[in-house]
Amino acid sequence: MGMVVQKYGGTSVGSLEKIAAVAGKVAKRYREGNSVVVVVSAMSGETDRLIGLARRLSPKPDVREMDVLVSTGEQVTISLLAMSLKDLGVPARSLLAHQINIVTDNAYTKARIVHVELEMIRKVLDSGEVAVVAGFQGVTEGRDVTTLGRGGSDTSAVAMAAVLNADVCEIYTDVDGVYTCDPNICEKARRLDKISYDEMLEMASLGAKVLQTRSVEFAKKYNVPILVKSAFSDEGGTLTTTEDKDMEKEVVSGVTYDRNEARITLLGLQDRPGIAASVFTALAEENINVDMIIQNSSADGKFADLSFTVTKTDYDKALEMVRKMLPDLGARDVVGDTSVAKISIVGVGMRSHAGVASRMFEALSGVGINIIMISTSEIKVSCVIDEKFMELGVRVLHEAFELEKEKQ
Amino acid sequence: MGMVVQKYGGTSVGSLEKIAAVAGKVAKRYREGNSVVVVVSAMSGETDRLIGLARRLSPKPDVREMDVLVSTGEQVTISLLAMSLKDLGVPARSLLAHQINIVTDNAYTKARIVHVELEMIRKVLDSGEVAVVAGFQGVTEGRDVTTLGRGGSDTSAVAMAAVLNADVCEIYTDVDGVYTCDPNICEKARRLDKISYDEMLEMASLGAKVLQTRSVEFAKKYNVPILVKSAFSDEGGTLTTTEDKDMEKEVVSGVTYDRNEARITLLGLQDRPGIAASVFTALAEENINVDMIIQNSSADGKFADLSFTVTKTDYDKALEMVRKMLPDLGARDVVGDTSVAKISIVGVGMRSHAGVASRMFEALSGVGINIIMISTSEIKVSCVIDEKFMELGVRVLHEAFELEKEKQ
Repeated sequence: MGMVVQKYGGTSVGSLEKIAAVAGKVAKRYREGNSVVVVVSAMSGETDRLIGLARRLSPKPDVREMDVLVSTGEQVTISLLAMSLKDLGVPARSLLAHQINIVTDNAYTKARIVHVELEMIRKVLDSGEVAVVAGFQGVTEGRDVTTLGRGGSDTSAVAMAAVLNADVCEIYTDVDGVYTCDPNICEKARRLDKISYDEMLEMASLGAKVLQTRSVEFAKKYNVPILVKSAFSDEGGTLTTTEDKDMEKEVVSGVTYDRNEARITLLGLQDRPGIAASVFTALAEENINVDMIIQNSSADGKFADLSFTVTKTDYDKALEMVRKMLPDLGARDVVGDTSVAKISIVGVGMRSHAGVASRMFEALSGVGINIIMISTSEIKVSCVIDEKFMELGVRVLHEAFELEKEKQ
Repeated sequence: MGMVVQKYGGTSVGSLEKIAAVAGKVAKRYREGNSVVVVVSAMSGETDRLIGLARRLSPKPDVREMDVLVSTGEQVTISLLAMSLKDLGVPARSLLAHQINIVTDNAYTKARIVHVELEMIRKVLDSGEVAVVAGFQGVTEGRDVTTLGRGGSDTSAVAMAAVLNADVCEIYTDVDGVYTCDPNICEKARRLDKISYDEMLEMASLGAKVLQTRSVEFAKKYNVPILVKSAFSDEGGTLTTTEDKDMEKEVVSGVTYDRNEARITLLGLQDRPGIAASVFTALAEENINVDMIIQNSSADGKFADLSFTVTKTDYDKALEMVRKMLPDLGARDVVGDTSVAKISIVGVGMRSHAGVASRMFEALSGVGINIIMISTSEIKVSCVIDEKFMELGVRVLHEAFELEKEKQ
């Protein structure tokens, strides 16, 4: 008799047959005596189809309306899944964000959940029904529809699990867990049974597309165990949970990459306090996330070069913004490069093991890969390199840290 | 400086190009200085596509979930139209039923509007924005999504016009007005410039598919003038409004037909008070609308035959229900017939002209058409006949009442 939140992604509900199969899986958990909340994404391809409609109609679709549009994808799935559950004799009820008050801020297309009302969802579960919740969507205080950005259904699921204090949040997807590396790039990749929130957070933010970053932040904050599993198999699975001793045995848990990086460099910037801040404030106001930042001062300390990375999607906009700011910044020029990629190693073991970064740099230089930018945190080291060496770099690092072997 | 409600049906917003064209028409009215509310349907084919999904998934899709599903069609259209308006520089805002509180009862798939909140829509219009409202949908007191049945967007539009006390409710569709008869059947059909609510009501309920019946009831109750026009031409149009002297000059304004009728006959029913009522109460509880009812007593007054018509869609269900009730009703048997159709003549002039019905019966018998059932009201006469004579009957009546000629 537990409280279970399950989330099924787009490929898991990609056809009517698959929706019926998901209904079967949900029914099983329900009949075991659990209270079940199911969070679903749009059928695979549907969100892109809707975005395509908007793009063909409008050169720059209004973001408020974009959210009204794309949120229909999840609405279709919840209704179909609820129908299918009822056909199996399982009482079920589809719920839109505004019906259970998944309240977000006003940042259309990438809104953040501010609050989830417990009362509404409780009432549904207490009546013995399976709650079939539309992922990806929220509602503002002013009752506008919002969406949570790509992968937002993960966050919807974790938010439901958090507010309900669920025993587990099961994320069903098209992979059977989190790997030491993308198996498409590195055939020796190994599935991890367990991973800490912090590692998962780094891996998600570094480009491993298993979970939306924000969902892991949420899970960590509210201590929600996330089990990532395949929707099509009962085997495998990776549990993301609080750090334990086992995890520290591994110096590095995984290697990740991100192709969606672009570099922008401001040349000959006047090295005055507040100059860099003004750039990043302006970008933040336009909701452009900056990832890595590096500044080099000239020998005389008067001028500096400032490099930072943004997603390739935001690149054009960011470059244009910075170019307009050039006079105010007193910078000489701005240049950009989209043919870069980021590769990273992640592991809580780094905290207690020295020399991890240098081992990484050596491994890369050993095969002639030049490192353009470096950024480190307590549990990860990232390098920006030439995009064409990305796959090679990933495989080299996987081997250097012996990730194919399970540590005992 | 007026208050205009416009409604565009599915074919008028059937493609991105058509949505852009509608935006142009709306922008024009807005720039003339009007407050504009636009109500839109789903893109043509979309509602059927969604219903198809449900039917392929579920043998008998749950009606609550059906409404969650099909209401996405309008949601897509309002977002696209609002985007398109903004691209034209017109401030616009898409609005779902729950955002402006179009409150309905709980009769999923054929809900009735109970109340429309004025405050919410007023606020949008007062801010100078065009309100782009999702037609066809409502929300229950419990915040569930409902839909208003086929053609429900007409009712949404009239309800908005009523609550806002609009100058006119313009219904844009794929025909350029209301005709004396379906031009596909009768080539001499003539477009009417003006028609009374009561006539329109009869024509709508009798099967002329221009407007949803409920929308006309609403318009009559709140005295909303409805202008039916083609979305693709500036010519033509029929105004539905309060009765005036001109209208009475025409004995008959139009001939309508309805193929979607089926007849059920209870044989040898015990002629006890309350027996007929029990049948129709049971059918009403299942939301089955009964149209015509005829009862013939036997010579000794002990037994009666009771005939009534339902839509062909409800026929199987109704027949099964009545069959189960046979023992309680003390009836001998029940028989049914789906190969019937209804043809009707409508006109407020009937009130002041005698002999209209007999002229109808003579015209039909003149070409050998047998009348199976008759039903009359103050301004219409309907006959159920063999379906295969339907087109012939319609043409004969159009000629008998000289509807091709405009009365002076």
